[in-house]
Amino acid sequence: MAPLKVHGSPMSTATQRVLVCLYEKDLDFEFVPVNMGTGDHKKEPFISRNPFGQVPAFEDGDLTLFESRAITQYIAHTNADKGTQLLIMEDPIPKKMAIMSVWMEVEAHQFDRSTSKLAWEVVFKPMFGMTTDTAAVSEEEAKLNKILDVYEARLAQSKYIGGDSFSLADMHHLPNLGYLMETPYKSYFESRPHVSAWCKDILARPAWAKVKAMKA
Amino acid sequence: MAPLKVHGSPMSTATQRVLVCLYEKDLDFEFVPVNMGTGDHKKEPFISRNPFGQVPAFEDGDLTLFESRAITQYIAHTNADKGTQLLIMEDPIPKKMAIMSVWMEVEAHQFDRSTSKLAWEVVFKPMFGMTTDTAAVSEEEAKLNKILDVYEARLAQSKYIGGDSFSLADMHHLPNLGYLMETPYKSYFESRPHVSAWCKDILARPAWAKVKAMKA
Repeated sequence: MAPLKVHGSPMSTATQRVLVCLYEKDLDFEFVPVNMGTGDHKKEPFISRNPFGQVPAFEDGDLTLFESRAITQYIAHTNADKGTQLLIMEDPIPKKMAIMSVWMEVEAHQFDRSTSKLAWEVVFKPMFGMTTDTAAVSEEEAKLNKILDVYEARLAQSKYIGGDSFSLADMHHLPNLGYLMETPYKSYFESRPHVSAWCKDILARPAWAKVKAMKA
Repeated sequence: MAPLKVHGSPMSTATQRVLVCLYEKDLDFEFVPVNMGTGDHKKEPFISRNPFGQVPAFEDGDLTLFESRAITQYIAHTNADKGTQLLIMEDPIPKKMAIMSVWMEVEAHQFDRSTSKLAWEVVFKPMFGMTTDTAAVSEEEAKLNKILDVYEARLAQSKYIGGDSFSLADMHHLPNLGYLMETPYKSYFESRPHVSAWCKDILARPAWAKVKAMKA
């Protein structure tokens, strides 16, 4: 059987999202680095795998996928019996899964948009010698504070963001969370007790340590 | 049995996404208008249904959901035997469903971001007496052109965006598409033959006509 393949960069949050999923699932895979510094994600052969020219792309035999959250859902559904159960399988399953989906959408549309912009301004721009846009930063800081107030209320009632157990909904937060915890925004998370406990819990997962080791 | 309830506004694209799904599925539901003009989406009782204060919210008995794409997935999965089949049920199902998921993510992260910004600038701002930001418009026009080039290539190979049959992946495009087709951006869609045929097909669905009638 052809091995699973991930084409991407260990620095990319979307690539990390797929890698942490594969490690949670204890699956063997081949990692194919894509050199974003030389723009290889905008050229063949990569753009045949993702016409939008964004990492990662994923291969399972003759199936090629892109979009990190579509890839993690495919991995979680087709490997339900391996490694960590990343879906919410409590009764009533359709309702519990729907609540997990709500919080997956919240991650994608609220958390990711805000934290990606902040990480771009305060982590990546300085790395590339670019100037941080302080007005954009202020706007996103206000948004992130509001988002984390909602998270604090949610996590006061639910151990994990998607339900009673760790799931894709939590896992999808790890890459952006990992970057922001190395910035002064760490205090945004640590000042809220339930958010803080949740961050500590999910950032300590062995699968996440394996992804961080790939960045080194 | 308590009826399904949608709390929202017929002008809101996210609300329309849920409404068209309910009509495709031939489900009875109660529509509860939320007056966004008086900010009712930012107040109780609405914010107990969605703490982010965004329409719509959805109720199925004791289950309350928000985030339009989580709601449509719940409706499609729990009513698989009613109305239009909105999932891709061809063999091999996990692979075909994964490809549908990829294009649902593309809609959410590429198409929606670009078309929502354009609709805001050229449809809603003039409606509210605000001034269109021409620099923002130019930037989004360039992005939309690139996105639609990818769509044209995809639709040359696949009748629908998520696979061989109409699915959630197509349906999710309708609200933003509906707004842009009433603007000069109509030419962006009509100048690409496969995109044009796809738009004509999905915009002609009776379920969409029912949503448009609610706006009137």
